[in-house]
Amino acid sequence: MSVTDELLANNAEYAASFTGPLPLPPAKHVAVLACMDARLNVYGVLGLEEGDAHVIRNAGGVVTEDEIRSLAISQRLLGTTEIILIHHTDCGMLTFTDDEFRTSIRRDTGVKPAWSSEAFPDVEDDVRQSLARIRTSPFIPHRDSVRGFVFDVATGKLNEVR
Amino acid sequence: MSVTDELLANNAEYAASFTGPLPLPPAKHVAVLACMDARLNVYGVLGLEEGDAHVIRNAGGVVTEDEIRSLAISQRLLGTTEIILIHHTDCGMLTFTDDEFRTSIRRDTGVKPAWSSEAFPDVEDDVRQSLARIRTSPFIPHRDSVRGFVFDVATGKLNEVR
Repeated sequence: MSVTDELLANNAEYAASFTGPLPLPPAKHVAVLACMDARLNVYGVLGLEEGDAHVIRNAGGVVTEDEIRSLAISQRLLGTTEIILIHHTDCGMLTFTDDEFRTSIRRDTGVKPAWSSEAFPDVEDDVRQSLARIRTSPFIPHRDSVRGFVFDVATGKLNEVR
Repeated sequence: MSVTDELLANNAEYAASFTGPLPLPPAKHVAVLACMDARLNVYGVLGLEEGDAHVIRNAGGVVTEDEIRSLAISQRLLGTTEIILIHHTDCGMLTFTDDEFRTSIRRDTGVKPAWSSEAFPDVEDDVRQSLARIRTSPFIPHRDSVRGFVFDVATGKLNEVR
């Protein structure tokens, strides 16, 4: 049995006690953008429940064109007005450089990706970069409450980046 | 008090009973790619716990360059080998067209985005499109277990797309 099959068995249990459907727009009018890291359970960390918030995630919790797309849809069509960014300690993105990663892909596949890996050497500094990318985007209408945090994987705490 | 402040108060409670840190690589060697929809609590739906799986999310749960970046990092650097894609019923992406969305942005801001909104008219068909984008990418080494599902927001069940 694959892990996917095992997780599908979990889904049957979840569905057995499920009560839905909830409304489409997020009840708390918040969008969270976080790293994909397995230790970062966004619903747990922020005490969110089903229906509360949009959750956008990727390697690093960075802001590229695709996150601007998701945030624009979230705010313009589904009524969110606040953004919470979450990076975290002990991130995999600190362990390699963009050049190393793309060169290793070229070595293995013959093709060097045209995209950047978005690897970063300092987590707080990259939160500031992500905040700046959102604040300077013409496509994000609500920028009054855009705040960035580092989740500490040892303590479970969010620490704000100023 | 903003909603962000309210969620930070929840974080203090979470941290009070937190036990960490866990290892960086996902224990179940799985990456999940899902829509950002507020009703789709990926940890709940699949019975995941902290440390189990990478979770990548965006508007629609679609596969663009940034999701290929995240999946490549997940598989090549952090040991995941299975991918689970999740779209869902009653998705916001079914309610507009790409042209409408980008034209409305141009009307409001003067600037038409160069990116597509990735809106789609049929959810199962878009799961197939996302599967195809992963299966044809040279940057994703493990493609033997890539499966796609539609989450039913009324029942909590995952239905596989064949």
